[in-house]
Amino acid sequence: MIIGTLGPQGTYSEKAAIQYNKNAGLQFYEDIFDTVDALLRNEVDKSIVPIENSLEGSITLTLDLLWEHELKIIGEVIVQIKHCLLSKGKKEDIKIIMSHPQALSQCRKYIKNNFKGVEIRSDLSTSHAAKIASGSKEIAAIASAESAKMYGLNILAENIQDVPGNFTRFIVVGKTTQSPTGNDKTSIIVYLEKNKPGALYEILGEFAGNNIDLTKIESRPTKKALGDYVFYIDIKGHIEDEIIKDTISRIKGKVGMLKILGSYPVAN
Amino acid sequence: MIIGTLGPQGTYSEKAAIQYNKNAGLQFYEDIFDTVDALLRNEVDKSIVPIENSLEGSITLTLDLLWEHELKIIGEVIVQIKHCLLSKGKKEDIKIIMSHPQALSQCRKYIKNNFKGVEIRSDLSTSHAAKIASGSKEIAAIASAESAKMYGLNILAENIQDVPGNFTRFIVVGKTTQSPTGNDKTSIIVYLEKNKPGALYEILGEFAGNNIDLTKIESRPTKKALGDYVFYIDIKGHIEDEIIKDTISRIKGKVGMLKILGSYPVAN
Repeated sequence: MIIGTLGPQGTYSEKAAIQYNKNAGLQFYEDIFDTVDALLRNEVDKSIVPIENSLEGSITLTLDLLWEHELKIIGEVIVQIKHCLLSKGKKEDIKIIMSHPQALSQCRKYIKNNFKGVEIRSDLSTSHAAKIASGSKEIAAIASAESAKMYGLNILAENIQDVPGNFTRFIVVGKTTQSPTGNDKTSIIVYLEKNKPGALYEILGEFAGNNIDLTKIESRPTKKALGDYVFYIDIKGHIEDEIIKDTISRIKGKVGMLKILGSYPVAN
Repeated sequence: MIIGTLGPQGTYSEKAAIQYNKNAGLQFYEDIFDTVDALLRNEVDKSIVPIENSLEGSITLTLDLLWEHELKIIGEVIVQIKHCLLSKGKKEDIKIIMSHPQALSQCRKYIKNNFKGVEIRSDLSTSHAAKIASGSKEIAAIASAESAKMYGLNILAENIQDVPGNFTRFIVVGKTTQSPTGNDKTSIIVYLEKNKPGALYEILGEFAGNNIDLTKIESRPTKKALGDYVFYIDIKGHIEDEIIKDTISRIKGKVGMLKILGSYPVAN
């Protein structure tokens, strides 16, 4: 089994893929878009992509790809993120700090307080930044401790994200559906009828009335007009559970569009 | 009156500030953080910052600053965004494309289709990228047509965002409150009691029951734990309207925390 993963070696995505299935082969891609595209082109069996971080919130590109393509969420994995400042040289040599934009945002205050005036450059992934940093003492990367080993860099500072507890949730996307395990989650996207006040309230009422637990609700623009949104909703339960199936089919009749992204086991 | 604005000259923020008050003096800052900080340090009377784009969604740093600091939203402005590809040289000279991360995301497909393999570098603002691009034929910037004039660049391509209609909503933050105009919006942040299923439904019921129109709801992480959120809610009406005042005070009794960000005139 081959899992498409954001590369090169040393990313938090790689960590997530190993946590999901330590026996799978990994195929690395340059960005989230290519990682998902590899699955759509049947180059890999599954792909793993970040969807949400506890400090920075949703990875919006992932949300948009779920809306645009026929993808099934078949699993989720939670990984603890501990960013380090890595470089060939010393702190005083650093002229450029590179990393993935999410990592840069998660360390915004650390950078502002310690490297005022240093050039900040966003890169395709944390480990790609580490790879680049191995070529010059003037470049530091924000990446995992594992990346330091992999690319021969010094760890100049550890755990530099603005809040100590930092977790990213990854989703595994595939093309098959998952059978119920007894502890599942179902993800859907709902587009309400425009300009219908109370429409969201009505939808949430269907869940509340059936004691279905809502674990997440998030709005994203439809890209058609400012103020026009779709809602990404996660609920506890499996689409094959009678109560979930009935509730979702009732909601379907009340909304402009409803897309089921999949049911999958809840991560610990 | 001095308005703090993301600079240098030529940003969409500058356009928004002029649209808001063409007689105000503008003071330019390097990033959104510094623009808001200038207001907190009383260096400016008001500040203007982007909060939401029709393609890319919320500017999460702005949302987080509203939650962390004592800021009042006193107005909103909507600006049409037309990104251009700007350079001193020709298309075939380009080795680096620079812009603000939001602009890069809004033109993701254009870049992927036309400049596969070119280095993408995020910068502090669209106009700052234009300024940098004026120094080398190998660098192109994604910025406004006005920036081309300002920094002596050629417009190599126009309207390059992935969807033609592209709008950004800016908010004006200050320290005073605004009187009702008859067509106002009120923004609040609500933190529900954790693990209370149906809590969001109950809150939305207070608005629906009083025919208060919800124009936006958006979740953001509290940064304390994965899956722990605050909700940013925009409703039609002014906090001095009896019905709004009563509804909000009722909601206050039901939630963990409620912060009123302000009431302000709705933008056209």
